[in-house]
Amino acid sequence: MQSSPSPTAGSACSATSHRDAFGDCDPANIVYFPNFYRWLDQATHDLCEAAGFELTAVRRDRQWVGFPLAEAGARFHRPATINDLLRIETRVKEWRPKMFLLEHRILRDGMLLVEGWQTRFIGVHLVEQGGRLAALPLPPEFVAAIDRVIG
Amino acid sequence: MQSSPSPTAGSACSATSHRDAFGDCDPANIVYFPNFYRWLDQATHDLCEAAGFELTAVRRDRQWVGFPLAEAGARFHRPATINDLLRIETRVKEWRPKMFLLEHRILRDGMLLVEGWQTRFIGVHLVEQGGRLAALPLPPEFVAAIDRVIG
Amino acid sequence: MQSSPSPTAGSACSATSHRDAFGDCDPANIVYFPNFYRWLDQATHDLCEAAGFELTAVRRDRQWVGFPLAEAGARFHRPATINDLLRIETRVKEWRPKMFLLEHRILRDGMLLVEGWQTRFIGVHLVEQGGRLAALPLPPEFVAAIDRVIG
Amino acid sequence: MQSSPSPTAGSACSATSHRDAFGDCDPANIVYFPNFYRWLDQATHDLCEAAGFELTAVRRDRQWVGFPLAEAGARFHRPATINDLLRIETRVKEWRPKMFLLEHRILRDGMLLVEGWQTRFIGVHLVEQGGRLAALPLPPEFVAAIDRVIG
Repeated sequence: MQSSPSPTAGSACSATSHRDAFGDCDPANIVYFPNFYRWLDQATHDLCEAAGFELTAVRRDRQWVGFPLAEAGARFHRPATINDLLRIETRVKEWRPKMFLLEHRILRDGMLLVEGWQTRFIGVHLVEQGGRLAALPLPPEFVAAIDRVIG
Repeated sequence: MQSSPSPTAGSACSATSHRDAFGDCDPANIVYFPNFYRWLDQATHDLCEAAGFELTAVRRDRQWVGFPLAEAGARFHRPATINDLLRIETRVKEWRPKMFLLEHRILRDGMLLVEGWQTRFIGVHLVEQGGRLAALPLPPEFVAAIDRVIG
Repeated sequence: MQSSPSPTAGSACSATSHRDAFGDCDPANIVYFPNFYRWLDQATHDLCEAAGFELTAVRRDRQWVGFPLAEAGARFHRPATINDLLRIETRVKEWRPKMFLLEHRILRDGMLLVEGWQTRFIGVHLVEQGGRLAALPLPPEFVAAIDRVIG
Repeated sequence: MQSSPSPTAGSACSATSHRDAFGDCDPANIVYFPNFYRWLDQATHDLCEAAGFELTAVRRDRQWVGFPLAEAGARFHRPATINDLLRIETRVKEWRPKMFLLEHRILRDGMLLVEGWQTRFIGVHLVEQGGRLAALPLPPEFVAAIDRVIG
């Protein structure tokens, strides 16, 4: 997936694409819904990478654990099926001091199939607290870089 | 997974269990979060089966499509990892005319890891409308049977 | 994934690509191996589609069940990891009357990571035998079309 | 899954079980075949754990990477479907100096559905060679412990 700014419907976003595989679908012949969360997860990782914060690099160079989820959800409006080409849009709804709230839309031929949301943070291990996972205050350069990609 | 009534913390529920596999975990050494949705999905299917509405049977005997999701979400409080034995609790929060709202809790040794929720309906194909998927008014015997399992 | 003829190393093949997601990887920080089988499965489906035998279409128009596997295996030479861009090559090693044997190679930057193989057939339901799954004698136009794509 | 010795059909083995979930199945209403590799992988991990070589423990205490695969394959005799209760049998076919060859059988009600095989080694990082992954000569106590579990 390639992440790129993409103004649509009056709202800037980053957009990636996914083509549904046979193995993504269930006996009802539609995408098994947990797969949508995988693709929305990857859409966020692609956005971070496009902003210069590729996961492997931030784990190695910044000792970040990554971008753990505090919450994730989705509303399923219409099903997707085998070989559908999906467009996945990502935008940041809100920047908080230590959390960022993402919104996703999954579309096929301009028709909205799924709306998703994620609350994420930058995870770090607090050495002084036995390695406990904690949320890093969001670095301004991270916020600025993501905002630039989204456009 | 076996579904059984299980009163805990003052609230009746149905409970199943899952043991995390190596392949359920990601490079951060914790369960990759979309897997939780798979297990919560199965927990609901197990509850319906325990109530006498096994998926294959309702598809064959009642021409129900199954129990599609209108919405699903989860809050991630603590991570799970390889070989953790998880307890998955399921209860119905609200019965609406054509929708039912489920609540899930995933625990390890009594500690809450994940809270989940699902909005579901009984899916049927409307023959008179070209097979369009629609929500069946919830049959009273379905509601009663689920309530009996949850206890 | 797009399937296209691609002569490399003196041997014609069809080639697709896949970029590893974070969620494809396991606690050892490498692709969890069952995922390779998913991608090799999709590579075969992409080849069939490029040859004019798209899965949904053959299920609807020809009453084929699809292209079930009799056997599948893989040798793992080197691991793949997050964000690796993989090239997946597919060729037919042997056409039998009712079976076709496929060979796959997964490469990263020209380096061989995985060799895979599949034995497949065209599945049909024998109505006269209670719907039993059987292997259709391979239609000459199917063989010819696949051979044309592989080049 | 619990691993336990289980002599059947004249041959000792370790046995675990798995109940197919709705989400394990594909649009043909049968288990999507890459899932079998996940369960066979877990069956091997369960065997190693029963022998005293639990994955998390050997990674932490012995600096083993785990039990990487050099090769894995399966023959699919009959399909499995939603809610099938599968019995997964595991035995060691051959001990080599640095490799062990496993054989698996997946049965439903005594009927053979899938035969699988895996070639594995104990992975270690060679510090003196820049962390290159290598195969440890199989420790005699590992071989003996596995043999004892299989019975």
